[in-house]
Amino acid sequence: MARYAEHQALALPVRRPGVPIHRWLYAEMRAAILNGRLAGGQRLPPTRDLAHQFGIARGTAVAVFEQLVAEGYVTAAAGRGTHVASSLPDDLFAAAIPRAKLLKTSGHPIGLSDRARPLTRSPFPLTGPTTAGGAFRAGQPDLMAFPVTLWSRIGNRIGRRSQRLLLGAGDVAGYLPLREAIAAYLGTSRGIRCSAEQIVLVASVQQGLDLCVRLLVNPNESVWMEDPGYPAARSVLEAADAKTIYVPVDAEGIDVAAGRRSAPSAKFAYITPGRQYPLGVTLSLKRRLELLRWAEQSGAVIFEDDYDSEFRFSGPPLAALKSLDSIDRVVYAGTFSKLLFPAIRLACLVLPVRLIDPFIAALSLTTRHMPTWNQAILSDFIAEGHFSRHLRRMRTLYSERAEALQEAARTHWSDFLVMSRIESGLDTAVLLRPRIDDRAAAAAAARANIELRPLSGHSQRRPRLRGFVVGFAAVDSRSIFDGASRFAQILKEQVSISKAHRPVSRH
Amino acid sequence: MARYAEHQALALPVRRPGVPIHRWLYAEMRAAILNGRLAGGQRLPPTRDLAHQFGIARGTAVAVFEQLVAEGYVTAAAGRGTHVASSLPDDLFAAAIPRAKLLKTSGHPIGLSDRARPLTRSPFPLTGPTTAGGAFRAGQPDLMAFPVTLWSRIGNRIGRRSQRLLLGAGDVAGYLPLREAIAAYLGTSRGIRCSAEQIVLVASVQQGLDLCVRLLVNPNESVWMEDPGYPAARSVLEAADAKTIYVPVDAEGIDVAAGRRSAPSAKFAYITPGRQYPLGVTLSLKRRLELLRWAEQSGAVIFEDDYDSEFRFSGPPLAALKSLDSIDRVVYAGTFSKLLFPAIRLACLVLPVRLIDPFIAALSLTTRHMPTWNQAILSDFIAEGHFSRHLRRMRTLYSERAEALQEAARTHWSDFLVMSRIESGLDTAVLLRPRIDDRAAAAAAARANIELRPLSGHSQRRPRLRGFVVGFAAVDSRSIFDGASRFAQILKEQVSISKAHRPVSRH
Repeated sequence: MARYAEHQALALPVRRPGVPIHRWLYAEMRAAILNGRLAGGQRLPPTRDLAHQFGIARGTAVAVFEQLVAEGYVTAAAGRGTHVASSLPDDLFAAAIPRAKLLKTSGHPIGLSDRARPLTRSPFPLTGPTTAGGAFRAGQPDLMAFPVTLWSRIGNRIGRRSQRLLLGAGDVAGYLPLREAIAAYLGTSRGIRCSAEQIVLVASVQQGLDLCVRLLVNPNESVWMEDPGYPAARSVLEAADAKTIYVPVDAEGIDVAAGRRSAPSAKFAYITPGRQYPLGVTLSLKRRLELLRWAEQSGAVIFEDDYDSEFRFSGPPLAALKSLDSIDRVVYAGTFSKLLFPAIRLACLVLPVRLIDPFIAALSLTTRHMPTWNQAILSDFIAEGHFSRHLRRMRTLYSERAEALQEAARTHWSDFLVMSRIESGLDTAVLLRPRIDDRAAAAAAARANIELRPLSGHSQRRPRLRGFVVGFAAVDSRSIFDGASRFAQILKEQVSISKAHRPVSRH
Repeated sequence: MARYAEHQALALPVRRPGVPIHRWLYAEMRAAILNGRLAGGQRLPPTRDLAHQFGIARGTAVAVFEQLVAEGYVTAAAGRGTHVASSLPDDLFAAAIPRAKLLKTSGHPIGLSDRARPLTRSPFPLTGPTTAGGAFRAGQPDLMAFPVTLWSRIGNRIGRRSQRLLLGAGDVAGYLPLREAIAAYLGTSRGIRCSAEQIVLVASVQQGLDLCVRLLVNPNESVWMEDPGYPAARSVLEAADAKTIYVPVDAEGIDVAAGRRSAPSAKFAYITPGRQYPLGVTLSLKRRLELLRWAEQSGAVIFEDDYDSEFRFSGPPLAALKSLDSIDRVVYAGTFSKLLFPAIRLACLVLPVRLIDPFIAALSLTTRHMPTWNQAILSDFIAEGHFSRHLRRMRTLYSERAEALQEAARTHWSDFLVMSRIESGLDTAVLLRPRIDDRAAAAAAARANIELRPLSGHSQRRPRLRGFVVGFAAVDSRSIFDGASRFAQILKEQVSISKAHRPVSRH
């Protein structure tokens, strides 16, 4: 039996200030075993000696030894002392490669799947913004106008009510009082007659779309997608191995007849009837009925992304496509991230009756349910009337900002951009007059802290649409005018650059 | 041009009390058009007459007409009056089928995809429990012991600080101060050296697993799964079209050599090293190193589900497999739903460096990020020391309950069930001695309000394991003894039933 390690062999690096003794001793002994300074089979000193050597409590040394035994680094047997485990394989040494070094070299390569390509093609920024708004952030409500103190007060009250059951696993479909409040709201505001049973809370419209397409579409089956359309939806459809069929959009919305010609037996259609994204047109009643008739004949399910049409400025919101859905084949999706604030991460679906059980089972498997606390706050926020009040206030505020943007556009953009009348929403599309690259212009604008989404990334048709999605809801009027003036200057420069280059290419 | 409708033709059903006038008028006129009582092309009375007829404000009538025009039900032209739209297709009538009737007939059938089968095979209950605990709910921490008032007070403070940026879209990976706090915690508690950049917050371990397998595994590629193992993980793997390879578990955990024989080139392995689910064994150091060596050679990624091993009763938690991962191929997953309370819906992953960007992009596309508010509360909860304090208290509480369960098992179950020493966790597995059906016994127990998960549903090997997963963390000692005694009685009855049936089958 080996004599236990000499004091020299057990010399451990000095403990840094602030590191607790037991952590230091555990980490250093483990490291010494892993890098071979303490060899397999080697006997360790008795805890009494160790405690004496390092001036620590014996109990600490005992606890560390027990931990090393439990983890298999050290073996202990009554009357035989403790030893470094002799069965440690040779490649333990490999484990000693410092992680810091690995981080520098970005680690070993990891092979991705084929569907990782669409699945990682996300148009969303990966880090949060550093400002609450600014010209011309799209798709965002005004954060300054949200009654955050009221919101947190409701949260505090829920905590004081101390409903322990709210801490446990909740209904997968969502907190029932919230679903009831949403069903009532959708009846009034969107003309949808539905019961709380059909409502399911998800984190985002995208999450709802992801689960629906996985549940409904087999690999290589066709799905309709608007062109131009929402790139994030396209990525989700393709990540589920669906075959995307681009159906053109005109002044009445998606051209259903064209869709029927391209892919009559598609299984699924992603549509934005309330305010087509990005063009902003409303799907006409005629087209709505054509679409529903097609769904009835083909057996397709229609996914209605109703992302922001609650904010209509010239009257109450238009009824949703779902309100006409007598064949129960439309999934309606709305999002509180745009109605209230993005960080809430709550969207709601109204599901066809036949889809409720499969959807809830799939949600339960892949996510379980949305956090209950947020849902309970939102539920009270709606029930106490704060929600309608907030929407009314925001409709007025956004309407004023839409006016400001239209005035600013008339003043500064008429040479460069075509803007239609803004009827609703948080943003609008403008089309470029001069033949310049919208991505280059958006990049130049970004360097001047002006946010714009280029339209060309939204369309498949040739020639591609060129223009921008321009947000106004989260931008105060001063910033709208200032941003419009500065962006006009940038467009002017882009036109000059473009002209300077064009003659060369004609030679 | 048609004279406008007679008063009789425009007779609308009486307004129910409480329904606002504009909603009533809009809904009834729309219904009259949809069901053909107002025919296409028919002229509508002037708003003035309508207002007079029904005794309502003219402005209300005008607003309703404008809404119907915007939605395409009615056309209006200056000097020509308003008419029911004549281009309404015949099948508008179809839209009038009452939804209530549809609900009764469960709607039209909807065809599901092939992968809908595993995707809807969820072992989780779809509605929340009606009690905060009880014998022998598994996988749940004690809800009564959670400092819910403190939690909501922190939330209220965050609201008062009024950080508007917390309302906007956040970092997709998670709230940075929280990720920093988690990185520090995992270093101390689980031996994982990682930076906040590697940490990503997700809603559940299942969500992390779903995205990882979709990113890493192509359809029909092999993945390792423990047998017995966690059924929910298996469903997620199969919903991503992976080919599940069952690798047996013995007293040292997953049998890596057996896995190498069955599927040496598998792309992915789902493992529970800290406390194997459901058997409870800890993966030995030797096996850990074998597993990492295999991953290095095959290029596989290992998913370490570390769902509850923080609660170790005989010393500090054992270090995670990830702490040995010098080749950076292990995804570590832990969950606050078990450490704190299920409704929080927050889990964390430590990702290999090479997987960070693809994972965050996929999360951003399919979900965006976790709600910020919860994350900010948890971040302060950890930073202020409440988290460690709570875990310490829970370790003591659960340890006492584990003792109680072991004593109750000795007293009541020794004829029927074999229970190993409980070292850690929120639940434990017991094996049946008599040859009875564990599902039938669990169903009988459920009728007596005793919750148990039958083991046979967790295993693929023949003969199937028979026994139960028995939770103790959310069950007070009295309920443990009472439940154990009552369940012993149920088992006794099941044995009698089984004996009564057996001779018959031998004839």
